[in-house]
Amino acid sequence: MPTTEQRATNITWHEGEATRDERHRNLGQKGATLWMTGLSGSGKSTVAVALEQVLLQRGKHAYRLDGDNVRHGLNKNLGFSAEDRTENIRRIGEVSKLFADAGILAITSFISPYRADRDLVRKLHADAGLPFIEVFVDAPLDVAEGRDPKGLYKKARAGQLKGFTGIDDPYEAPEKPELHLKTHELTVEQSVAVLIELLESRSLLSA
Amino acid sequence: MPTTEQRATNITWHEGEATRDERHRNLGQKGATLWMTGLSGSGKSTVAVALEQVLLQRGKHAYRLDGDNVRHGLNKNLGFSAEDRTENIRRIGEVSKLFADAGILAITSFISPYRADRDLVRKLHADAGLPFIEVFVDAPLDVAEGRDPKGLYKKARAGQLKGFTGIDDPYEAPEKPELHLKTHELTVEQSVAVLIELLESRSLLSA
Repeated sequence: MPTTEQRATNITWHEGEATRDERHRNLGQKGATLWMTGLSGSGKSTVAVALEQVLLQRGKHAYRLDGDNVRHGLNKNLGFSAEDRTENIRRIGEVSKLFADAGILAITSFISPYRADRDLVRKLHADAGLPFIEVFVDAPLDVAEGRDPKGLYKKARAGQLKGFTGIDDPYEAPEKPELHLKTHELTVEQSVAVLIELLESRSLLSA
Repeated sequence: MPTTEQRATNITWHEGEATRDERHRNLGQKGATLWMTGLSGSGKSTVAVALEQVLLQRGKHAYRLDGDNVRHGLNKNLGFSAEDRTENIRRIGEVSKLFADAGILAITSFISPYRADRDLVRKLHADAGLPFIEVFVDAPLDVAEGRDPKGLYKKARAGQLKGFTGIDDPYEAPEKPELHLKTHELTVEQSVAVLIELLESRSLLSA
């Protein structure tokens, strides 16, 4: 076994921190946040899951933030009051910003119905010089409700869920999203193709 | 310009989500959290910065979480009450867990003086099946205070900072850290060499 001194001869470092550019070059891509917003059942998760698969196939690096890994973890001490919903989105925005800074494509899929909350996350990224791509994942309410993958619309219509977006709480559609994805007019493959083209057109998939 | 249909022919995806293993293979390493704990001035940040540089040189992927990118972002709504300090470490633990899940080596450098807080983060990782490596970055108080890189000990001694770890608030040293790094006995290069060897011995730097 080599001694500590011998091992240490392979180690060189210099003053100053590794830069964002160095991290991104090392990953062969630029970090960014792809923020999917839309009604429950609009297709956010389906598109996010498919996009991650296709990026991985191409050797690119993405990570999805969604209810599964955030609501039961980082944000498990938040409820559904107006204040807590805003804090929920703020924290997700801050975490996606850290992933983007690290060089990973953060793909978030949360309803995130309020414009002010999304605009705050956009500003967080702008202030940090990191790309924020808002994707309006859009399907008409009757289509989304017809899909109802989690049975939530049914519960909301039955009055078992209060403050449900699209039923008794508003969805504030993005006014100027980077992309408007009408999932009822596209296959999943087509949605992913459009997203990949958007990422490529912004040179985010190369360092 | 190709039509959406033509572009879509290159897109294939399948049911089910990309797995953690797929993400980690894609990055050529396994995700983990390297949790540096120790007094202010013990060398946590210096070692973390140097380790990140050396990992990048080797084409590996790390991201540092520290006061600079967490206290002014995700945790900017937290103060220094006992409750807020615990929540500070909990959130950092949750975020490092997400990075580890993504396949990145999360390197955290926070004093994190309380054993219970660190043990909670250890449990979060264990429950998620992700490696948690606690590194006790150790220098005697007089050495750490002599370094005083941010002038904080001086302020604490003058009574301008209350509840400062090591002065008027306890530091609860880890009982069974994965590594005990005595920075007053090692060069930075040696500390990094020991950490790299630890990561390699746990097969974390290969997929």
